[in-house]
Amino acid sequence: MDAAHRLGEIKGHEEQIGRSRPSGKAYSRDFRGPNWLDTRKAAADYADRDPTVLVVGGGQAGISIAARLTQLRVDTLIVDREPRIGDNWRKRYHALVLHNQVHVNHLPYMPFPPNWPTYIPKDKLAVWFEAYVESMELNYWTATEFEGGSYDEKQGRWSVALRRADGTKREMHPRHVVMATGVSGIPNLPDIPTLHKFAGTVLHSSQYEDGEPWRGKRALVIGSGNSGHDIAQDLHSSGAQVTLVQRSSTMIVNVEPSAQLPYAIYDEGPSLEDCDLITTSIPLPLARKSHVLLTEQAKNIDKDLLDGLARVGFKLDFGDDGTGWQFKYLTRGGGYYFNVGCSDLIVEGEIGLVQFSDIAGFVAEGARMHTGETVVADLIVLATGYKGQEYLVRKLFGDDVAARVGPIWGFGGELELRNMFTRTAQPGLWFIAGSFAQCRIYSKYLALQIKACELGLLPRTRMAADVPVRGTAGSDPAAARATRVPTQRHRRRAR
Amino acid sequence: MDAAHRLGEIKGHEEQIGRSRPSGKAYSRDFRGPNWLDTRKAAADYADRDPTVLVVGGGQAGISIAARLTQLRVDTLIVDREPRIGDNWRKRYHALVLHNQVHVNHLPYMPFPPNWPTYIPKDKLAVWFEAYVESMELNYWTATEFEGGSYDEKQGRWSVALRRADGTKREMHPRHVVMATGVSGIPNLPDIPTLHKFAGTVLHSSQYEDGEPWRGKRALVIGSGNSGHDIAQDLHSSGAQVTLVQRSSTMIVNVEPSAQLPYAIYDEGPSLEDCDLITTSIPLPLARKSHVLLTEQAKNIDKDLLDGLARVGFKLDFGDDGTGWQFKYLTRGGGYYFNVGCSDLIVEGEIGLVQFSDIAGFVAEGARMHTGETVVADLIVLATGYKGQEYLVRKLFGDDVAARVGPIWGFGGELELRNMFTRTAQPGLWFIAGSFAQCRIYSKYLALQIKACELGLLPRTRMAADVPVRGTAGSDPAAARATRVPTQRHRRRAR
Repeated sequence: MDAAHRLGEIKGHEEQIGRSRPSGKAYSRDFRGPNWLDTRKAAADYADRDPTVLVVGGGQAGISIAARLTQLRVDTLIVDREPRIGDNWRKRYHALVLHNQVHVNHLPYMPFPPNWPTYIPKDKLAVWFEAYVESMELNYWTATEFEGGSYDEKQGRWSVALRRADGTKREMHPRHVVMATGVSGIPNLPDIPTLHKFAGTVLHSSQYEDGEPWRGKRALVIGSGNSGHDIAQDLHSSGAQVTLVQRSSTMIVNVEPSAQLPYAIYDEGPSLEDCDLITTSIPLPLARKSHVLLTEQAKNIDKDLLDGLARVGFKLDFGDDGTGWQFKYLTRGGGYYFNVGCSDLIVEGEIGLVQFSDIAGFVAEGARMHTGETVVADLIVLATGYKGQEYLVRKLFGDDVAARVGPIWGFGGELELRNMFTRTAQPGLWFIAGSFAQCRIYSKYLALQIKACELGLLPRTRMAADVPVRGTAGSDPAAARATRVPTQRHRRRAR
Repeated sequence: MDAAHRLGEIKGHEEQIGRSRPSGKAYSRDFRGPNWLDTRKAAADYADRDPTVLVVGGGQAGISIAARLTQLRVDTLIVDREPRIGDNWRKRYHALVLHNQVHVNHLPYMPFPPNWPTYIPKDKLAVWFEAYVESMELNYWTATEFEGGSYDEKQGRWSVALRRADGTKREMHPRHVVMATGVSGIPNLPDIPTLHKFAGTVLHSSQYEDGEPWRGKRALVIGSGNSGHDIAQDLHSSGAQVTLVQRSSTMIVNVEPSAQLPYAIYDEGPSLEDCDLITTSIPLPLARKSHVLLTEQAKNIDKDLLDGLARVGFKLDFGDDGTGWQFKYLTRGGGYYFNVGCSDLIVEGEIGLVQFSDIAGFVAEGARMHTGETVVADLIVLATGYKGQEYLVRKLFGDDVAARVGPIWGFGGELELRNMFTRTAQPGLWFIAGSFAQCRIYSKYLALQIKACELGLLPRTRMAADVPVRGTAGSDPAAARATRVPTQRHRRRAR
C-alpha cells in the first residue's frame, strides 16, 4: 500500500462530522429563500454545471466513494443503469442474504442498526441503499448508461457520454471518473467447441433469473464457484433435476462458522474504526500466515462435509500454499463456495456431479461422457464468470487507455491490488470494487487521493516507479484473465 | 414517575439488539420459501389477523413506540391519515428546520448520521421517517383514518374502525390503542363576538398554508406563540404587511444559543443512553431550580432583544416562578416563542404589534381600537392553538371513556404528565406525545408496560390510588383547557 493509502485527513479539508457537522441554520433564516429540498434538487440536477467526479455504478463501491467525496466537498455524481437504487441487490436470487455478518458490512458514516439481522437479506439491503443515498445527500442518476469517454490531457478532464432513461444524451466533463461497476458485464464464455450441438437452452449465469420454468426439467450447471452452486441450488429447489459440472478444484467453506472466522475481531466489541485499522495494519506475510491457520481451522470444523464431498468425487483445494479463500479472492476473485446448502445436496446425491474433464463433448441431448454415457439435459447454465474489468476499460475508453492502465484487481508481484483504490497510469481514472468492508475502508483513501489531486497536493498519475509490475500481462488485457476481477456473484457474496 | 417507568427490561423478553440480534439465516436456507420481503409484506398486510397494538399517528411519537414494541415482539400497526410517511413534517412551512440540535433528537435504535446538519430541515427529516419505518420493519398504513372505537371489557379488546384511502373500511380488534396524534386536530377558536363583522378572510393557523397569495396585502395574526410568530414571519417574507396581536404575555428565547442551554449535556460527548438517563433522573424540585437558573442565563444572553421587545410594547414573561419555557411546555404546552427572526422584525417595526386588550372590536375593514383608530386588514389568522387531546378522546371513544381518562398532558399536583406514557383509567388506552427526546425516552417505558400487561405482569389499568389527581378538571374536558396538550406547532417545534 503506498503512502497515499495512509492519509488520515488533509488539513483544512477535514470531514464535517460530529461536532464539526454543518449547522443547517442557513435554510431557516430566510423564510422564502431556497430551503434544503430546493438546494438538494438543484444540486442533483446538474442543469448548469458538471460534477468534478463521475462515479460509474451505484452499488456498495459507488455509494461508499461518493459519500466520502461528498464529505470532502468534492462535487460527485453517481450514474447507474438500473432504474431504482438498490436494484443491483434487489434483482438477485430470491433467497439471497449477505454471506458474512452485519458488523463487517457497515457503509461509511451510517452503520446498520443494532436490531438488524446478522445476515442481511437482499431486499432489506436494497432499501437501505435508497436511504443511504438520501441521507448522505448523494447525487445519483438512475437508469443512466455510461457510454464511455475520452481524456483531454490539455484541459485535464474527460468528455463522457451518458444516455438517460428517456433516451436523451448528456455530455459531461468531469475531471475524474471512478469505475465502481465491479464487473465488466461482459460474460466469460469459455470455448467449448461442441456446445453448439446441444439442442436445449444455453444461458450464461448472468441471464439466469428464476428456477420456476425448469420445474421437472433437467439442467447442467457448468462451474463450481458461488454462482454455479447458487444456481444449482435454486434449480433444485424449483424441482429441476440438476447436475453440477466441475471444471477445476474448488474450495468449500461452510458459511457458518467457518467463513466467519477471519472476521472474529468484528464482533460489536471494539469500534468499527479500530477493527478497520487493525485489519488494514496487518503486513502481508503475517496475513498469509494467519489465513493458513484459519484455513486449517475451517478444514477441521468442516471435516464431515469435506469428507462427504471427496467421497462423491468433488475436487477440493485450499488455495495456494493453503492460504484459503481470502487469497483466492484477492488473487483471482473466485474459486470457492460458501456453503449454504448446495454442498450438502451434492453429498446426498440430490444434485449430481460430473467432472468437466470426463465430458467428451456435447450432443443434442446433453453431455456425452468419455464412458459413452449421456447426461441428458434441457438446460445448460454457464456459470463461468465474467471477463476482467480491463475488457470494460477497453470498451469504454479505447485501446490506449486500456493498455496504459493494464490489468485490474489481483495481487501481482507487488503488495497491493492492481489499480484498485489508487492512482492509475491514466490521469483521472480510478477503480473501486470489492466487499462492503473493502469499499468502506478503501473509499476513504481513494477519496483523499482525489481531493489531494484537486488541491494540487498529489500528481494526477502514479510515477513510473509506482506503476504496478504488470508481469507477463503487459498491455494485453486477455493475458490478465487469471487475475481478473471477481465475478458479479463472487464479488457480491464473497466477503 | 411510577415504578413502571423505571423498568429496564423484562427477563426473557429482552430487546434483540447488538449481539442478541436475530440471525436472519432462516431466509436463505430454503431457497424457494418465503424470503424476507415476502415475510415483511405479509406481516404489514394484516390479511388474516389483527395487531395486538394499534398506534394512531405516525409522527415521531408513533414510530418511536412502534419501534420499541416491535423490538419486544408485540405485533404493532401504525395508521396515519397522511398519504406518505413523513408528511406531518413535509407539509409544514417552507423554511422549517428543527429548533433544537440533532444530538437531542435521535429516534430509538437508529441515530442520525454524524454528517447531518445540527438543525435538521423538515424534508430531510421526512425522508428519514420513511427510512426508519423500513429499517425498523414497522407496519404502517398510510392514508388511513382512525374513526374511533369502543372497548369490550369482557374480551379485553377494542373494536376500532379504520377507513383506508380507497374508501374501504376495516374493523380491527387490537388489545391496545396508543394515541400518538399529538394534537386533537380540533382548532381552538376563541369566542370573539365581533369577528363575524370582519369582511376579509379568517383562517385558523391550521388552515394557513402559504404567504404567496397575500403579497401586498395586510394581515393580522392573533396569537404570539410559535405558530403566530412563524406565520407572521412567513407572511412578512412574502411581502404582506403584518401586525401581530398579542393576547397574553409570552416568553421569547433566541433559538441559539439560549434555547439550547438545557441540552448542554447532549453534545456528542457521553453516550445518548447516559444523557437520557441523567436527564430523566433529575428530581422535579432540582429540575425546576435548574430551569430557573437557565432562564436567568438566557435572559442575560438575550438582553438586547428583550429590551427591544419591551420598548415596542411586547409583553414578556419568564414562566411561573421564572422556570422558563420548559415548564411552560410541560404545564400548558405553549406560551413561548423560539426566535428565528420574527422578534427582530417586531423590534425593528417591520412587523407591527398591538395588544388584543387594546382592540374594541372587529369591523368590516379590520380591528377597531379603543383609541378609535382602525387597523386595516385583508386577512386575519387565528394562531390560537388547538383544543386538548381530551376533546379527541371524547370524539373517538365517547363521553364515558373521556370522563374516565380525564385531562391529558400537563403537570398537575402530581409529579408526572397526566396520562402520558403510562396506564390510564381506561384499559388498553395509552398516550404518547412530545418532543423527539420525550418520544425516544418514554417510548421505552410505555412499550415495557404494554408488554408487561400482555404477559400478565401488570394490571391493565392504574389502581385508583395511582390515578392522577384531576384537580378541578374533573370529568369535564373543557375545564382542562389550561393544561391542554401542546399545539401542533408548539409540540413539533418546542424542543
